[in-house]
Amino acid sequence: MITAPTNQKVKNLSNLMRKGKARREQKLFVAEGIKMFLEADPARIQEVYLSRSFWDKLEKGDEKEIKKRLSACSVEILTDTLFQRVSDTQTPQGILCVIRQHFYQPEDLLKKENPLLLLLEDIQDPGNLGTMFRTAEGTGVDGVIMSRGTADIYNPKTIRSTMGSVYRVPFLYTEDLRSSMAWLQKRGIQIFAAHLQGKKAYYEENFQSGCAFLIGNEGKGLKEETALAAESLVKLPMEGKVESLNAAIAASVLLYEAARQRWLGAANGVLNSHGNIIKKRGKR
Amino acid sequence: MITAPTNQKVKNLSNLMRKGKARREQKLFVAEGIKMFLEADPARIQEVYLSRSFWDKLEKGDEKEIKKRLSACSVEILTDTLFQRVSDTQTPQGILCVIRQHFYQPEDLLKKENPLLLLLEDIQDPGNLGTMFRTAEGTGVDGVIMSRGTADIYNPKTIRSTMGSVYRVPFLYTEDLRSSMAWLQKRGIQIFAAHLQGKKAYYEENFQSGCAFLIGNEGKGLKEETALAAESLVKLPMEGKVESLNAAIAASVLLYEAARQRWLGAANGVLNSHGNIIKKRGKR
Repeated sequence: MITAPTNQKVKNLSNLMRKGKARREQKLFVAEGIKMFLEADPARIQEVYLSRSFWDKLEKGDEKEIKKRLSACSVEILTDTLFQRVSDTQTPQGILCVIRQHFYQPEDLLKKENPLLLLLEDIQDPGNLGTMFRTAEGTGVDGVIMSRGTADIYNPKTIRSTMGSVYRVPFLYTEDLRSSMAWLQKRGIQIFAAHLQGKKAYYEENFQSGCAFLIGNEGKGLKEETALAAESLVKLPMEGKVESLNAAIAASVLLYEAARQRWLGAANGVLNSHGNIIKKRGKR
Repeated sequence: MITAPTNQKVKNLSNLMRKGKARREQKLFVAEGIKMFLEADPARIQEVYLSRSFWDKLEKGDEKEIKKRLSACSVEILTDTLFQRVSDTQTPQGILCVIRQHFYQPEDLLKKENPLLLLLEDIQDPGNLGTMFRTAEGTGVDGVIMSRGTADIYNPKTIRSTMGSVYRVPFLYTEDLRSSMAWLQKRGIQIFAAHLQGKKAYYEENFQSGCAFLIGNEGKGLKEETALAAESLVKLPMEGKVESLNAAIAASVLLYEAARQRWLGAANGVLNSHGNIIKKRGKR
């Protein structure tokens, strides 16, 4: 059992939790909690750290799935005090996993017909970013492309708010978002930017072909050049005195509209631009 | 200028920022930032606190609207150090307003024909709660009813994430959410609970008549008795391994679907349960 905060392993674990630079250099990240441990790809788990009391609970109890999976891992036990110190949560569950980062290729995001993608420019809030990954998986998104100025997906708070979706939604950071957009457009992906100056409301567009939604920074919105590089600006109508939506909310409303059209389309046939059925799916 | 943290006014300001009990007892809350000051009802502003450097900027500059509105307020200046200590943000704008709470009556939420309401059971995250108010205003929601176990709407973090919507969306806390639901149902409001066991997808329901969406706690979802008291359970379909959505995301997707149906309905006539137009609005 490790008791000293000066222990080299604990120091590095702390660094991986707190410093983006350490994560980038070591190509590792830390995922916290039981759910995040169970959903991780076992082949990518490098080390697991448990709190003493969680370890005791496992020894006594019947959490067989956790124990079975732990038996294949390199495990260290920390005192509860030390664990609490390293953990990013107020009431830690007692398990932290060091996981190898996975590097997707652009082609990994375009494996399906009519892909649905999410493009993010300089999103800053770790919770917002994680929430977008969670909704992205829920709406069948094939990949997320982030500008270099976007928050670190491997920030522990972001990882936690993805609720595991970070393991399953392909993503990449791009040095040049506009080049990535051009690359997508060459492959027939239509890019819709969420923008106050959009002429059509989002529900007047058809999102059933390959398309991508472009979402800008929480405070500043999209850079003008980036918005101009999209084919279409779509508007999220707002009543009252609301000037903008939270970025994760805007992304989710657009993604759910695309998913709604695709689900209805798959069930009923082709929809028109208002999401109305214009061609019934033939009965077999 | 106030320089001492032991000053009674500063102590009370700090209490109002940090303690729900102080806010409840004094029926006051604190709103931070320029936008929140400018959008507040002047008649409800009790006191304004400025940082020294913000005050200097006002003296020099031409922020006429702020200066004009400040001239009608009781203003205190704090040293920058003291202001930073009281503020809830890392880089404060330099303005804090103490505002009188407003107490809505249940009838205030039902002033319009076909009201759209949001019912919240034990939402815990202040940011989530504020974001829901922001989306609620944007989708034309007529009121928010919260269970007593819901986070404090007057928490500074919540206030900030409403982006001013807290001033404009009527709301109330209820000791007994199920009685409030029965009260609404007697008045013809149909209650839709967001629930994993919903049989119909949310986009298969018609939300154009008076209706309310019921959203449960982030971790535990809705209590079973509460879900049972709703007329309908609606499902938010999810792909992949996603088990649930963030509560603010779920609320926003439902509210935007209701708004979409209502906007399309207002523009085009009556929609059927799939949001398809079944009766064209007659031309004038």
